[in-house]
Parts: sequence; structure tokens; C-alpha cells
Amino acid sequence: MRLTPNMNTTFRWLLLSTILLVHIQTFAQKEKHQMVRLAKLVIDSTQLDNYKTFLKEEIETSLRVEAGVLTLYALSEKDKPTHITLLEIYADVEAHKFHLQTPHFLKYKKGTLDMVKSLELIETDPILPALSIFQKKS
Amino acid sequence: MRLTPNMNTTFRWLLLSTILLVHIQTFAQKEKHQMVRLAKLVIDSTQLDNYKTFLKEEIETSLRVEAGVLTLYALSEKDKPTHITLLEIYADVEAHKFHLQTPHFLKYKKGTLDMVKSLELIETDPILPALSIFQKKS
Repeated sequence: MRLTPNMNTTFRWLLLSTILLVHIQTFAQKEKHQMVRLAKLVIDSTQLDNYKTFLKEEIETSLRVEAGVLTLYALSEKDKPTHITLLEIYADVEAHKFHLQTPHFLKYKKGTLDMVKSLELIETDPILPALSIFQKKS
Repeated sequence: MRLTPNMNTTFRWLLLSTILLVHIQTFAQKEKHQMVRLAKLVIDSTQLDNYKTFLKEEIETSLRVEAGVLTLYALSEKDKPTHITLLEIYADVEAHKFHLQTPHFLKYKKGTLDMVKSLELIETDPILPALSIFQKKS
């Protein structure tokens, strides 16, 4: 069968729409499966600098080598510098499971065990999933 | 004075190094001036959906129209959906001051006044300033 010019245009539009739809669905599914968590830690004040060194190395390595670690963003409170909050975003639960087995995470976990006075893990839902990765650069 | 080939090369390297240094300093200053904050809110459970509608509109508008609003990332806790945390990153203190005067922020603030049961603002320091904007896209 040869396509007439009209059929050709219709066919192209159909193909384009299908591709677009698949992309939108894939994006929506990705957002839906993300694992978004807050980790709240209190660190022994005498070991804070040492703890931060471990944490920085762990974050930098994870973001560099693990495709499934989308964000590890760490903050310390100005008024309580030993109070650390981490925003963690993983592509999905599997990416998080993988992360827990990596040498750099295990090094951090074992290395800081005596420095962490408390750890609270809070599972969350992003209110605007489409903004789950920051969109701007400063 | 005419530059000899050797001087020319030296001059180019000097120029290149200076440009690079200025860029690095500008980048470091930008990061240094960022204002990074956690806002922790508890919302009236009977008005949670309504609150989220206000919040979504405020976030989307701020990120679209304000260059100085780098991030507004909102989470609700899975176990306590009325407990909302916002990670706010502004380019600097001035960008935050400007934000507080925008019509979309004032609309959100006035519109949600009776929905917010408590609000705690925590000023923070990012532990890895260079990662203050997420670097990956899912």
C-alpha cells in the first residue's frame, strides 16, 4: 500500500502523538515511583567535623556513581549545628536498596556509628511531584 | 610594544587564569549568599486539600516568575499527612525579601492563614554548598 499525502500526514501525527503519550506516561511513572525521605540526625558535638567529612564523601560518591540516587541534600541548623536534616530522593525503592549495599554507604554507616546520637527516618510524599528535581541553577 | 610569541602565550595564560579565577569566586560568592531554610507546618486536617491547592499555585508561580527563588520543595509525611515540610532556597536574602512582597505569596499567606495550625522556620547551612541545586534529572 502506498500512502497518499493526506494519509502520510495523518500517519505522522498519529506516530508523533503515540511517542508523546509514551513519554508522558514514562515520566509520570518515574515520578510516582520515586522514594522521597527526610532523615533527621543529631550528632555528637565533639565529633561534628569528623562526621561531616564522612557525610560529604558519602554524598559526593553516591551522586557521582549511583544513577538511582537523585538527591542527597544535607543541612545543619544554624541555631543547633549538631541537628542535621537530609533530603533523600531515590529513583525508586530498588535504587535505595542498592544504595544501602554500596561500599561508600557502608563505609559512612560504619564510620559514623558512634557519632550519631539519634536518627529519625520520615517517609514522605512530594506535594508537587513534577518539581521533585529542582529546576533552576543559580 | 609588540608581543613576542612567548610573551603572547604567557599573556594568554594569564588572561585565561584570571577569567577562571573570577568565575570561581563569583560561583563561591553566589553559594555563600544563598538563603536555605526549612519551614515546618501543621495544617488543619479538615482543610488539607484546600491548603495544598493554595501551596501548589504559590510554588509554581514563584518558580516561574521569580529568578531569585531557586527551590521550593514541599513534602507531606506519609504517617502524618498534615505535617508539611518545605525546603526553601533563595539566591540571597534580598530575593527572599522580594518574594515576601509578591502578589502570589501574599495571596497564599492570606488565603491559608486559618488553615495553618503551626509554623516553624529553621534557618540552615547546607553542608555541601556546591550541591545546593540538585544536579540530576530522573
